[in-house]
Amino acid sequence: MSFNHVAIIGLGLLGGSTGLAVQEFLPDVKTSGYDADPDVRVRARERGLAGAIFDDPAEAVSGADLVILCVPLGAMEAAARAIAPGLGQNTVISDVGSSKESVLRSLTSALPDHTIVPAHPVAGTEQSGPDAGFASLYQQRWCIITPPAQAPEDTVEAVASFWQSLGSTVEMMSPEHHDRVLAVTSHIPHLIAYTIVGTASDLEEVTRTEVIKYSAGGFRDFTRIAASDPTMWRDVFLNNREAVLDMLDRFLTDLAMMREAIKAGDGETMFDQFAKTRAVRRRIIEFGQDDARPDFGRHDHE
Amino acid sequence: MSFNHVAIIGLGLLGGSTGLAVQEFLPDVKTSGYDADPDVRVRARERGLAGAIFDDPAEAVSGADLVILCVPLGAMEAAARAIAPGLGQNTVISDVGSSKESVLRSLTSALPDHTIVPAHPVAGTEQSGPDAGFASLYQQRWCIITPPAQAPEDTVEAVASFWQSLGSTVEMMSPEHHDRVLAVTSHIPHLIAYTIVGTASDLEEVTRTEVIKYSAGGFRDFTRIAASDPTMWRDVFLNNREAVLDMLDRFLTDLAMMREAIKAGDGETMFDQFAKTRAVRRRIIEFGQDDARPDFGRHDHE
Repeated sequence: MSFNHVAIIGLGLLGGSTGLAVQEFLPDVKTSGYDADPDVRVRARERGLAGAIFDDPAEAVSGADLVILCVPLGAMEAAARAIAPGLGQNTVISDVGSSKESVLRSLTSALPDHTIVPAHPVAGTEQSGPDAGFASLYQQRWCIITPPAQAPEDTVEAVASFWQSLGSTVEMMSPEHHDRVLAVTSHIPHLIAYTIVGTASDLEEVTRTEVIKYSAGGFRDFTRIAASDPTMWRDVFLNNREAVLDMLDRFLTDLAMMREAIKAGDGETMFDQFAKTRAVRRRIIEFGQDDARPDFGRHDHE
Repeated sequence: MSFNHVAIIGLGLLGGSTGLAVQEFLPDVKTSGYDADPDVRVRARERGLAGAIFDDPAEAVSGADLVILCVPLGAMEAAARAIAPGLGQNTVISDVGSSKESVLRSLTSALPDHTIVPAHPVAGTEQSGPDAGFASLYQQRWCIITPPAQAPEDTVEAVASFWQSLGSTVEMMSPEHHDRVLAVTSHIPHLIAYTIVGTASDLEEVTRTEVIKYSAGGFRDFTRIAASDPTMWRDVFLNNREAVLDMLDRFLTDLAMMREAIKAGDGETMFDQFAKTRAVRRRIIEFGQDDARPDFGRHDHE
């Protein structure tokens, strides 16, 4: 089993990248697309994010054997209901959302008679909108699929094979486990970055211009993540609340320990903590998940 | 007034970059260097980090009119005492340390009869050691000079002019203000990054391999900073304790507010916080302090 016509609902960074990637890496597969924002549809047509861009969600999915919902988590259920009239009986429903327990609930509620195979390609940039996507976004990245128990095996395999064709390595896990893993590797880092950028912007005795000028000391790294789409991230924290709060509390416990070490002038505790984290960076580079060049290669570019 | 012979004590990332930068951008200025680690001296000679590398700190500074101490904050006072026998009466003492109140105290205590003009080039990468330096490190970066009141104006100007020659824009401020600014733009970001990388590594239900594989969701950015030199960073937190604790407490207050918003499902507070941080990123790019390419240009390189 493989897909012949993929419909993409939502044409921002992920939706646009998916459309472009299918056209590049699966040129025989038909693509169609829809976005609720008419201006986005105009840009999507100009950039050719899908073979055909429709003004109606049900029309966009007509004839598709796979529909991928690429909308913020909070818009997932409404988007699923909006496409329902155009779906074929055997159309498979998937998505790219960052939280999987909530997605499975939303999609099952909106489309109880369809096979739903939620997926999460762990890839992105801080940019958003119809100009942000590019075909190679999923190359060398992991895609996590969280199939419900009742999903037919060949359908799950077809979704996995689809993401592999776009350059990803696929892993399967339960939605619960996904949500805990991503709380650590993605959601907490974003929360921290958004918060520290806010803290630094609101100081009285250090001006915002000073924060910006001296940002090369480390702060600038956090501003990249904190430039991500606010709607998407609000929805992540509304939809993965439990796992995020749990992981946040662990981080806060560790940070309180570091605070005590600084207060006490306990250099040994600090050194031990700071010395063990280099190995993690090394393994991320070995796994091809980041650039080995110092400072993200910024100096090569300058 | 300008300098004819610059001696560099400590030949890691900053010391090595300074030596290479002087040789490239001020080719008429003589350079000499010393490092307490004999292995580092071997590599420093191989790479030509300074015109001459000495096995004795006092010999390395002999004849120099500017000495730049490029050692961790905790080694500053001992390094200053070690060079004392070789210093000329008018030799100017400077450094590149990340905390300026403590440096002024250490250097004044060790070398009470010399003109001391502390400086902090806000530049670096996560790499350290004699192989990490490169001549362009200071290009388009700010260098903060924190001259004591009694430092002669022409000497301060000469130190400023030196850093400008290596590509930096110079600003003057008090050591107290420097330490508060850098606590926000550099020290707290490092503390947070070191801590979250530690938290993620120690989880039981999420394996370290999962953390690494799915790090492209945001976590990998933090691992770069958390791969920085542990000795240097231990010393930063031992030497800028008060400002760091104050800024940390502000961050913790803001994070507690975000935690409450997540717990209460208060999407409006989250959205407002997440929407205001994009502007900071935009200004950092306008100020030439970071790369405008999405995702630090990682995809251009892949």
